[in-house]
Amino acid sequence: MRVQRPKGTVDILPGTSDSWEKVEQTASNFFKRANYREIRTPMFENYEVFARSSGESSDIVEKEMYDFDDKGGRHIALRPEGTAGVVRAYVENKLYGPEIVKPFNVFYIDPTFRYERPQAGRQREFHQIGVESFGSSSPLADVETIMMGHDLLAELGVKNYELHINSLGNAAVRKAYHDALVDYFTPLKDQLSEDSQRRLSMNPLRILDSKAEEDQKFLPDAPKIREFLDDDAKKNFETITNTLTQLGIDYVIDDDLVRGLDYYTGVIFEFMVADKKLWESATTILGGGRYDHLVEEFGGPATPAVGFGIGEERLMLVLKEQNPALFEDNGIDFFITNIGEGTEMKTVEIARLLRKQGFKTQYDVDQKKLKQQFRKANRVHAKYVITLGAKELENGTLNIKRLADGKTIDLSLDDLNDMQTVMEKLKD
Amino acid sequence: MRVQRPKGTVDILPGTSDSWEKVEQTASNFFKRANYREIRTPMFENYEVFARSSGESSDIVEKEMYDFDDKGGRHIALRPEGTAGVVRAYVENKLYGPEIVKPFNVFYIDPTFRYERPQAGRQREFHQIGVESFGSSSPLADVETIMMGHDLLAELGVKNYELHINSLGNAAVRKAYHDALVDYFTPLKDQLSEDSQRRLSMNPLRILDSKAEEDQKFLPDAPKIREFLDDDAKKNFETITNTLTQLGIDYVIDDDLVRGLDYYTGVIFEFMVADKKLWESATTILGGGRYDHLVEEFGGPATPAVGFGIGEERLMLVLKEQNPALFEDNGIDFFITNIGEGTEMKTVEIARLLRKQGFKTQYDVDQKKLKQQFRKANRVHAKYVITLGAKELENGTLNIKRLADGKTIDLSLDDLNDMQTVMEKLKD
Repeated sequence: MRVQRPKGTVDILPGTSDSWEKVEQTASNFFKRANYREIRTPMFENYEVFARSSGESSDIVEKEMYDFDDKGGRHIALRPEGTAGVVRAYVENKLYGPEIVKPFNVFYIDPTFRYERPQAGRQREFHQIGVESFGSSSPLADVETIMMGHDLLAELGVKNYELHINSLGNAAVRKAYHDALVDYFTPLKDQLSEDSQRRLSMNPLRILDSKAEEDQKFLPDAPKIREFLDDDAKKNFETITNTLTQLGIDYVIDDDLVRGLDYYTGVIFEFMVADKKLWESATTILGGGRYDHLVEEFGGPATPAVGFGIGEERLMLVLKEQNPALFEDNGIDFFITNIGEGTEMKTVEIARLLRKQGFKTQYDVDQKKLKQQFRKANRVHAKYVITLGAKELENGTLNIKRLADGKTIDLSLDDLNDMQTVMEKLKD
Repeated sequence: MRVQRPKGTVDILPGTSDSWEKVEQTASNFFKRANYREIRTPMFENYEVFARSSGESSDIVEKEMYDFDDKGGRHIALRPEGTAGVVRAYVENKLYGPEIVKPFNVFYIDPTFRYERPQAGRQREFHQIGVESFGSSSPLADVETIMMGHDLLAELGVKNYELHINSLGNAAVRKAYHDALVDYFTPLKDQLSEDSQRRLSMNPLRILDSKAEEDQKFLPDAPKIREFLDDDAKKNFETITNTLTQLGIDYVIDDDLVRGLDYYTGVIFEFMVADKKLWESATTILGGGRYDHLVEEFGGPATPAVGFGIGEERLMLVLKEQNPALFEDNGIDFFITNIGEGTEMKTVEIARLLRKQGFKTQYDVDQKKLKQQFRKANRVHAKYVITLGAKELENGTLNIKRLADGKTIDLSLDDLNDMQTVMEKLKD
C-alpha cells in the first residue's frame, strides 16, 4: 500500500511544528493576559449550524463544505470557520446566564475545513486562531477586540500590517444599503457574472466581494455603505476610530471592505500584510467584526458580540518571511554518550534524572559505537555531551563537554542531582 | 434555529479548558525534554490508511469509522487513532532517509473519531496524546517508550497506575500462536458469539479481546502466547522486563493482554488505573507497543517502531479525581476600575501596558458604575484592584488594593511601567 495524504492537506513535521506550537502558545498566553479563556467545540456540527450562520448563498455553504451523513444518518459538517460552533456552544450551554460574567470572552485555536482549490497559504484543512466576546455592545468592546488583534500580530513579529476598517451599520442601515445595491445592479444584471446574478437576489452585498472580471468594472461606482449610515451608526463608528487614534493604532477606512460572511453587523475590520515576496497584492491575515444577531439566530437571547479570526497558514507564511528567529532549531541540552560494560543502565538513569530537572536530554537507544554516538550528538544540535565510561562509572565520575568551544569539566555522579549548579560553573 | 452539538461530542468550556491545556502543555514539554518533536498529520486520510492498518476485521473499520466521499469523490475518513497517519507521513515524507537522525521520535496531540456508544470517558470525538519512535529495534527503545509513559503519568499526577505488559513475539511466533488459537476455538465455533465466529477466520487473536458473554467462558483455557515465544522473543522480553525492574518501574506480566489493533508485534503494554470512584474494574488510560511491519506495509523500507497512545478523556477523568489542583481557577492579576471624565482612555492604556508586562489584566468595557466594576473584579477572581479616578488621573496617581486582605498602596502612573517592582513592595 502506498497512500498519499489527501489533496489540500499537509503534514506539519518536526522542524516546522515547533514554530506552529510557539505561535499558538504565544497567542494563547496573549489572550489569557486579557482574561480571554479557551473554548473547544467539536470538529463537526450539525450541518445547519454552518449553513445558516455563514449564509445559504455563501461559497462556503454552496461549494466548500465537508458535509456528510454519519452512521446514524445525521447530516453533519466539518467546521469551515470558528465562530458558528462557538455561538452554538454559547447558546446550548446557556453561557448567557446571570452566573456568567459579561462580556463572556473566549479564544480558540481550531482546525477548519473548506473544499477549495489549494494555493499558497490556502489549504483544505487549515487553522484559525480567534476570539469572541459576547454581551457588550460598547464601542470599547470593539476597540478591545481590534487592539488585541493589533498587539498580538506585533508580539508575534508581524511587520508592516495595515488595519482596514468599515462599518456595516445597524439593521436599518443594511436594509437601505441592500435596496440601493439592488437598484444599482439590477439594470446591469445581464452583464454580471453568473454567480453575481444569483447573489443579486440572495445577498447583493456579496457582489462587492466578487473576483470575477465581468463584475469588477461595476464595483467602483457602486453605492458605498458609508453614505447610508444613520447618526447612531456614524457616531458609534467615530467613537471606535477616535479611540483607536488615541491608542496610536493606525487604520484606513475602507469602503470596499464588506467581509465574506452574512452574519456581520456594525464595525468590521481586516489586518492586511503587503509583502511582495509573498503576494502580489496586500492579503488579509486577520479579519473580524461585530455580529449582534447571531446568538439570537441560534435561539439564544439578543446578545451583542464581536470577534476576529486569524488564518494561521497565512500567518505562518508571513512570519517565516518576517520573523525567521521563530523557525530556528534550538537543539537539545545534553547528549549522553557511553561506552563499556554496565554503563547502559546508568545512562538511562542519568537521562531520566536530567529530564526531570527540565533539561532536554537524549542518549543512544541503539548503543552504537562511541564515534557514532558523538555524530548523533552533533546532528541533534546538543549543546553539551556527557561521557560515561566503565572506569568512570566505577569511580563515580564523568565528563561534560560544551560542543561550541570544546570546554570540558569533570563531574561526580552526585553533581547530576543539581545540574543547574553545574551549568553555572560552565558559564564562564 | 436551536441546534445541539452532535451526539458523542462535548464542548470544552472555560473553567475546564484550562486544565486540558495544562495537561497538553505538560505532555508536550515532557516529550520535548526527551527530544521527541511534534508531528501534525491531517484530520482525515484516505480510507485505506486506517482500513489497512487497523485491520479489516477490527471494530474500528467495520463499525466505527467516520468515512465519507469528499466533493471530489475521494473516499476519506476522520482519523480513528493517531498512529496510522503518522506512519503514512513517515513514508510519504521519506523520513527514513539518511539525512534524518534515527530513531525518528515524534509526539502528537490529536482529535480522533469513532462512531461508538458514548459513555463516561468515551466519546465519538475524543483525543489522543501519543509518541512514536521509528528506526530502532533495540529493547532500550521499548524501555524508553514505556518509561516515558510511566514518568509522564507520574508528572501529571496520576496515582495508583499499574503497568501490564506482554509480548506478541515475532512473525513466526504469532503464526504458531494463530494456528493454536484456531485449533482451540474451531471445535467451539458454534458456541461463540457471532462476532467471534467471524474473527476466527479473520483474526482469531481478537477473540481474546471479546467482551461477549458467550465467549468469556472459553478464554481462560485458551492457549497463551507466552508458551509460543521462541528463544529470541523470550530473551528480548526478558531484557525489557529486567531493565524496567532495574529502573524501579513495576509491572505485571499479563497473558490476557493482546491490544485491539492488528499491527502490533513484539512487546505490548497498558497502564491501567483502578479507581472505584471512576470505574468498576481497572481501566486502560495508556496503551502501546512495538509494530515492526507497519512502515513496510505503507510502502516504506523495513523499519522497526514502537509507540504509545493516551486516551485524553479518560486521563482527564482520572486527574479530576486524583489531581484536583489542576482544575483550580487561578483568576487574574489585576482588575482596573475607573470612574470619572477622561479615565476611560487611560484605563485601556494601563491594561495594555500591564498585559505587555505579562500580567493578566481586565477592565470593564461596559464602563458600568464603580460598584458593579468591583463586583466584576471579585467574580473574575482578581488578586488586585487598581482604581483610577478623574482627580487621580490629574495628579498622576492611582491606588492598588489586594483583595485577599484589603491592603492598599498608592502609586504614581509612572510606577506602572515596572509593575514587577510594585508587586515586590506589596509582598510583605
